[in-house]
This record gives sequence, structure tokens and C-alpha cells, in this order.
Amino acid sequence: MSVASEIPGFWAVVPAGGAGTRLWPLSRRRSPKFLHDLTGSGRTLLQATWDRLAPLAADRVVVVTGRDHAPEVARQLSGLDAAYLLAEPTPRDSMPAIAWAAAVVAACDPDAVIGSFAADHVITGVDGFHAAVGEAVALARAGHLVTLGITPTYAATGFGYIREGMPLGIAGAPSGRAVVEFVEKPDAGRAASYLAAGGFRWNAGMFVVRATVLLELVEQWHPAIAEGVRAVAGAPERLDEVWPTLTKIAIDHAVAEPAAALGRVAVVPATFGWDDIGDFDSLAGLVAGAAAESTGMSVIGEAGDVVSLDSTGLVVTRSGRLVAVVGVEDLVVVDTPDALLVVPRGRAQEVKAVVDRLTQLGRDDLR
Amino acid sequence: MSVASEIPGFWAVVPAGGAGTRLWPLSRRRSPKFLHDLTGSGRTLLQATWDRLAPLAADRVVVVTGRDHAPEVARQLSGLDAAYLLAEPTPRDSMPAIAWAAAVVAACDPDAVIGSFAADHVITGVDGFHAAVGEAVALARAGHLVTLGITPTYAATGFGYIREGMPLGIAGAPSGRAVVEFVEKPDAGRAASYLAAGGFRWNAGMFVVRATVLLELVEQWHPAIAEGVRAVAGAPERLDEVWPTLTKIAIDHAVAEPAAALGRVAVVPATFGWDDIGDFDSLAGLVAGAAAESTGMSVIGEAGDVVSLDSTGLVVTRSGRLVAVVGVEDLVVVDTPDALLVVPRGRAQEVKAVVDRLTQLGRDDLR
Repeated sequence: MSVASEIPGFWAVVPAGGAGTRLWPLSRRRSPKFLHDLTGSGRTLLQATWDRLAPLAADRVVVVTGRDHAPEVARQLSGLDAAYLLAEPTPRDSMPAIAWAAAVVAACDPDAVIGSFAADHVITGVDGFHAAVGEAVALARAGHLVTLGITPTYAATGFGYIREGMPLGIAGAPSGRAVVEFVEKPDAGRAASYLAAGGFRWNAGMFVVRATVLLELVEQWHPAIAEGVRAVAGAPERLDEVWPTLTKIAIDHAVAEPAAALGRVAVVPATFGWDDIGDFDSLAGLVAGAAAESTGMSVIGEAGDVVSLDSTGLVVTRSGRLVAVVGVEDLVVVDTPDALLVVPRGRAQEVKAVVDRLTQLGRDDLR
Repeated sequence: MSVASEIPGFWAVVPAGGAGTRLWPLSRRRSPKFLHDLTGSGRTLLQATWDRLAPLAADRVVVVTGRDHAPEVARQLSGLDAAYLLAEPTPRDSMPAIAWAAAVVAACDPDAVIGSFAADHVITGVDGFHAAVGEAVALARAGHLVTLGITPTYAATGFGYIREGMPLGIAGAPSGRAVVEFVEKPDAGRAASYLAAGGFRWNAGMFVVRATVLLELVEQWHPAIAEGVRAVAGAPERLDEVWPTLTKIAIDHAVAEPAAALGRVAVVPATFGWDDIGDFDSLAGLVAGAAAESTGMSVIGEAGDVVSLDSTGLVVTRSGRLVAVVGVEDLVVVDTPDALLVVPRGRAQEVKAVVDRLTQLGRDDLR
């Protein structure tokens, strides 16, 4: 357990959305990734996110999720204040969701600093996370929009990158630097050059900022969103009228990229481990540990339900049936009561195509 | 359908035994291979064997099976005379089983010719099979122990071989030849040399012989078995007393090999297709057809329950669940209500080790 202490005036915002299509059949439209204990830790990704943030924010945690998922979110987070569970009628991507939370928080506490952390990421080394958030809050109090930048471990093409600038020298944030720019997901060659050059970090979508500063930035580039979320925060009964009119846009494009161009964005380098569990290859690596990736078969679920002979990869067992694997290499087998998936780790990205096929086939019961 | 006509005095004997361990989880100790419709034809292997033999033998079909399986055999074969369903108290391998059937048949018809055909083989080209049996019966009437020899299609190391001798020139059996010897399962080098040399056939354990001749051969090398099966045929109430005393031995070793050394064995070359479905690789090849082995995913069961993307191999679906395979090559996935198997075609022989492991684990419910 971390011994982090509460940060006065800090509010945690947790956007709990995203389909996790590449993690089918564990993640489903009606029960997406963040509601599941994907790693077998005993806590769902949402609960683990709560566990990480509650020591810093105490009871100041706001969760924004889809209306369909709100009851399950409330069930999983018994400590969540009902007033801080914001249920979106329809998904509008991350900007409207986070801006809504900012408006709700600003109405309670005009000096609040919010930190937005997705509900479906895995973080290891929680002390490092808490330290980074502490620095980010100091930078946010100085007026910056702050992002936590992940140290790249390989030439990833699936993430956007942050190009670091000069140290900012702000008290309480010794590792804080300016952000020169956000870079879109690169091709393999550019990703390799970023890794070789240094000074680039992965953008994990974690932002820390004064609630009022965020709303000003939104006002600047997307005034209709700022107006809409203020209206909804002040008059919740207007939600169904206002929400569908809001532009569907991610916080990165809506404010982080233009704000970086104006020199308003800072970055705190992450010293913690981070994974967005983008697919089963990622999950297999996370469970096996980097050193053991090709040694033996990892199991998530009841190990007694798996017979593995001379095999490597990952078995996820959720059906209570026996799963026997013989002589397979880096293979993922996911066994659930109504659907089974078999895919090599190296092709885990293609699982999305199964969900597309199920949609074509009209198998809404399974996707 | 074949238009074969009945062969007077011909009795079919069907040894219905064998565990089919390499076909787990379809084949189980309590419900072995022959009781299943492995190929998705709509008939179990046992029923398909019946369908092949009934046109030749009419109501003269004798089935020998384990006592535990007798009720299911009777259920599957509604045309089988109860007096011709012989239930072994314990398995003693093929010689006692076939000799028992021979003794029962000889008591009904001293001139009978019996043909013994395992219940768990797949035969294609039934007209060729019927023609071969016709020739074999002619040779058997002339006093030979006759085997049907399968034309080798590759250098198999999993079968014994038959070395052919000179044509016998017997009326009604133009392709009949003497058998020089039976050869044990060879290593890869010897198998290749047999294939190159020609004059070798696979021993599929199909024997045609006068019932009285078979009993004489048994008498010669295993008098206790001959005496035992005659006693049981004459006094069925003595079965439990006599059966456990009989030597456990295969018909090949007990009589076919020594009889060949005495020049008493003949062979009829098979012009039909034959497969003993020894493992899932064999089943996959059978279902895909030789030409299509690596093209697409074969499905046994409900094709609508399978989503296959850029994959080859075999999916057997018996659970009603959706099975999704993405980017796998020559992989076998067998999905049953209580157990799942995943194995590459090339390692299908190793499935037996799963059953061994289940035995070690005390999972008698699953093996």
C-alpha cells in the first residue's frame, strides 16, 4: 500500500468509457473492459483506478460513464458519492465528459485542481504515480495544463507522443518540463527515431489542470462545449436536451494540442509502470511479466481448470470448463460461458474484426 | 447407396472397443470414439459400420463390445438382434472378442464365413469395400485367413504393414495374393523404403475367414482361448467365470502372424478409402479432403457457431457457444460442454498426454 497523503483541493476525475473491442469476449458492449478484473488481481480496472486515486482525493472523486453502465459503476464503487457519478446519455468522447466533470467540480470548489485518469489502464508502482500527480498538481496550480508522460519502452505505433521542452523550474515540481508539441501516432520508422532521439514520451491521456483553467481552454476553442457543460452542471434536468448537441471530440485534439502550441502545457515524466491493455498481447505480457513472456503458459482465472503441455501464451478461463492446450506457442485462449476466442499474441489487434463480423451477423447477444 | 447384394453364409463381426484417447475430449472412457459421429455425417462410426455391412450380411451381424457400452450400442443399432450383442466383462484385446463371435456364429452355422471390421474406422468408396469383401469371402471359403490390405499413401509409422506374395488365382478373387509376412510398425526410414519398393500394404486389422478355420487357428496357438470362447458360446452363464482367465492379445499376434509364416494368409488389396481416425490431424484431413488441407477452416458441428478469420485447421463445436479463431494455422480447436482442447495438427498425437494428466489429477469426470 502507498502511504501517499491527501492533496488538499485535488479532485480526481475518472472517465469510464471505451468499448475495449480488442479484448472481446471478455469486454462486451454492455460490459466493457473497465468493469472487469482483467488481470486477475481481485479488483476490476475501475476499482483499481479508484484505489489509486482515493488516497490523494479522499471523497473528491468524480466518475463520468455511459448511462447504461452507471448502475454497475455505483455497485463496484461503494464509496462513490452519488452526486459525483455523472451518466452520459450518449458517448461524446473525452472532452465533453471531462469538461462536464470540471464544471461540476468548479461549482463546488473554484480553486480545485482536477486530475483525469481513464478507468481502464493498469499502473504499477503506485508510489511513483502519486509522486507524479503531486508534481503535476504543483504545475497546475501555476496555471499549466499538465500531462503525465510515459517513458517509451519500445517503438510503439499505437500511441501518440509528447515532445518535451525545457525544465520549468517550478517549486514542488522538480521534473516538470514544457511540452513542445503533441505528435500523432507515428509510423514504425518515426517511432524508432523518437526512441533513438530521446525527449519523447507516450501520451497516456492523463491530464492535471485547474478546473477553471480547463473550462477557459474549452471556452477558447470549443465555446459550445463550455457553455453546454456549464448549463448541465447548473441544471442537471437539461442533460438530455443539451448533451446530444455537444461536439464529439477527444481532449487531446480539443485543447491539449492547441494549448501546447501556445506554451501552456507541461509534462511530468512517469516513473511508474503503465499499460492501457490495448489487446490480449498486452494483457499476456502484463500477466507474464516482461522477463517471462515466452516461458510457460500464463493463466488468468482458475489455474486448476487449465492443463498446459509444452505451451506458451495466455489462457483466460471464465467458464469453469477444463481448458487443455498442447504444443502451442504464444497463443491466447479466452474461454467464457458463451464465446471462445483463439488468437496468436502477434495478431491480437485483429480481434476487433471478430466483433465487426458479429455485428454483420446480427449477433448482438455476443458482441 | 451401394447396390451390393447379400453374400449367403457371410456373417459380419464388429469389435466395438478401443478408447480413442487421442480424440479426447470428444472420445471419453465412458463414451469412446465409435459411439460418436466424429465426421459430422449424421451417423456414428458404429452406425456407419453397420450401414456398410448390413447389405452384405443382412441380419447376420454380431457386435462385441464392453459391458458398459452395450446399452448404447443396442440403442444406436436398432436392427441388431439382442442375441448377437456380445458384452465383454473386461477388455481382453481383439483375439478373445473375435474368437467369441466366431464360436457363437459357428454354433449357428458351421459353414459360416465371418468378416471382422472395427467399429471406429471410416471407409469411403463403399462399392470398392463390398467388392473386396466379396473376393475375401471367396478366398476364405478356400481355407485362407484373409486380410484386406490398404494401399499406403505415405510412409506411415503408425501402422503395421503386410508384405504381399504371389497371386493365388482363386476363382472369384482375381486380386487375391498370398501374404509373405506381417511387419510391425516400422521407423520412418523403413516405412519410406516399403513405400518405394511397393508390394507392401497397411494392416487395417480387417480379417475374413471361416469361423471354424479361425477357431482351429486359435486352438493351435492359444488353446485356452479356443476352449474358453467355446465354453462361453455354449453356456453364456459361465461368462464372468471364464472371461477374466483369457489371455489379452490382438488377433494379429495371436494367429495372423504365425498363420502367415505357414502360408495360410491371403490379402485382397483395398480400392476403397480408409482412415482409422487415429487423432485430430487425421480427422482434420478427412473432413477437409486431401486437396484442401491448408485452405480455410473446416468445421464439424454448427458452422454458424464459428467465426474464422484468416485461419486454417479444424474447429469441432459441440457446446453451442461461439468459437472465434483469428490468424491461426493448422490448429485444432475442440469445444465441448465441459472441456476445450487446442492443439496444432502436427502435435495431435500428444493429446493422449492430456488424458494421462487428467488421470494424475484425479479428474475422472473429464477423461
